Amino acid sequence: MSPEVPAAVPSAADRAHPGRLVSLEGGDGAGKTTQRDLLGAWLTDLGHEVVLTREPGGTALGQVLRDAVLHGEDVDPRTEALLYATDRAHHVHSLVRPALARGAVVVTDRYLDSSVAYQGAARSLGDEEIRDLSLWATRGLLPDLTVLLDLDPAIAAARRTGAPDRLERESLDFHARVREHFLALAAAEPDRFLVLDAAAAPQEIHAAVRARLAPLLPAPASAAGSSGTAR
Amino acid sequence: MSPEVPAAVPSAADRAHPGRLVSLEGGDGAGKTTQRDLLGAWLTDLGHEVVLTREPGGTALGQVLRDAVLHGEDVDPRTEALLYATDRAHHVHSLVRPALARGAVVVTDRYLDSSVAYQGAARSLGDEEIRDLSLWATRGLLPDLTVLLDLDPAIAAARRTGAPDRLERESLDFHARVREHFLALAAAEPDRFLVLDAAAAPQEIHAAVRARLAPLLPAPASAAGSSGTAR
Repeated sequence: MSPEVPAAVPSAADRAHPGRLVSLEGGDGAGKTTQRDLLGAWLTDLGHEVVLTREPGGTALGQVLRDAVLHGEDVDPRTEALLYATDRAHHVHSLVRPALARGAVVVTDRYLDSSVAYQGAARSLGDEEIRDLSLWATRGLLPDLTVLLDLDPAIAAARRTGAPDRLERESLDFHARVREHFLALAAAEPDRFLVLDAAAAPQEIHAAVRARLAPLLPAPASAAGSSGTAR
Repeated sequence: MSPEVPAAVPSAADRAHPGRLVSLEGGDGAGKTTQRDLLGAWLTDLGHEVVLTREPGGTALGQVLRDAVLHGEDVDPRTEALLYATDRAHHVHSLVRPALARGAVVVTDRYLDSSVAYQGAARSLGDEEIRDLSLWATRGLLPDLTVLLDLDPAIAAARRTGAPDRLERESLDFHARVREHFLALAAAEPDRFLVLDAAAAPQEIHAAVRARLAPLLPAPASAAGSSGTAR
């Protein structure tokens, strides 16, 4: 695989398309969908074609794979990594790249950093090989901006329940490792990542995303700009 | 991925399990299923536990993936390669390796050489990366013996129909490239491959497979040996 994996993060100058790709990352309940929708409304108002999507399950095939991985038989770590990579390959090839080629702004709820953070936190596979697999699957497509909505899982859990039982503590440990992985990924690529406190008010978070994204945007195709939401 | 990919073909001495894996390869209609079933009957008579299986689709998840790749929406070459690799990872982890650990002889209708021959012949991905992907998916599991049932696709087609039309000629070209890929794979690993003329009589082919496989077999678990057929 390695000959196909890019040696370095593609720079903006290497970008072969007029569109922009923004990914939203973080744990469940961090507010990714809310921010995605706020971002979509703002970008549409600016006149951009906007495509709102998600992983896994952003395509019809992806739905089949999402069901297989979330609700099907237990799978081993390599099969799980390959299921997510297959979903990502098809999503990027059939939906994301065509939209970027049209000049659209694509906003995806989760992308390759989620695979690295979750499977890396499970400690069964190395971060490097999970990332390389995704880069091979997508021919090296990295987001122009990745917004990490960072939230302490203990705080999130404490808001929902009282003292955690043993299973909940194990789950907390896992989600704490996921969070550490996300933060480490952000620290390694500060030019791509924007880390925000997910405990802040949604409009405050949205304003910070707008400020960071605005200078990265292309000229809108038209003031009337169309928008669409993928599955 | 490359750190995980074995640098060389695992030797028999490296084998971490008491079982044996045999794969049958070749174009459609070469008689793989017939030979698999003849092999299964002979091995069962010898007292071995026998597991007859196939790729893609040797597991419940594999059936879902097989349907997706054979009957679903069109997919690009990377998605296709990843679908087959996912099927293979799950098949090996959940069915093949447990059977090998029990000492069974596993006979599979197609394995990783089919991915290399078919996708390599389609010229969209390099043979090396398709093979590396499968080796990563299976943690380097290669068959102890691979029987290539070799048949000239022009001869096979001529038996079925008259002069080929344009589409059939294109298909013939493709299947001729698949055949060349299979033969090149066999030439590169003569210790693993047995190449047989698929135009010969089934019992004659079966006798040649038996002769090559017999010295590779472990001692049978019991004279009564159980057998099973996977989906």
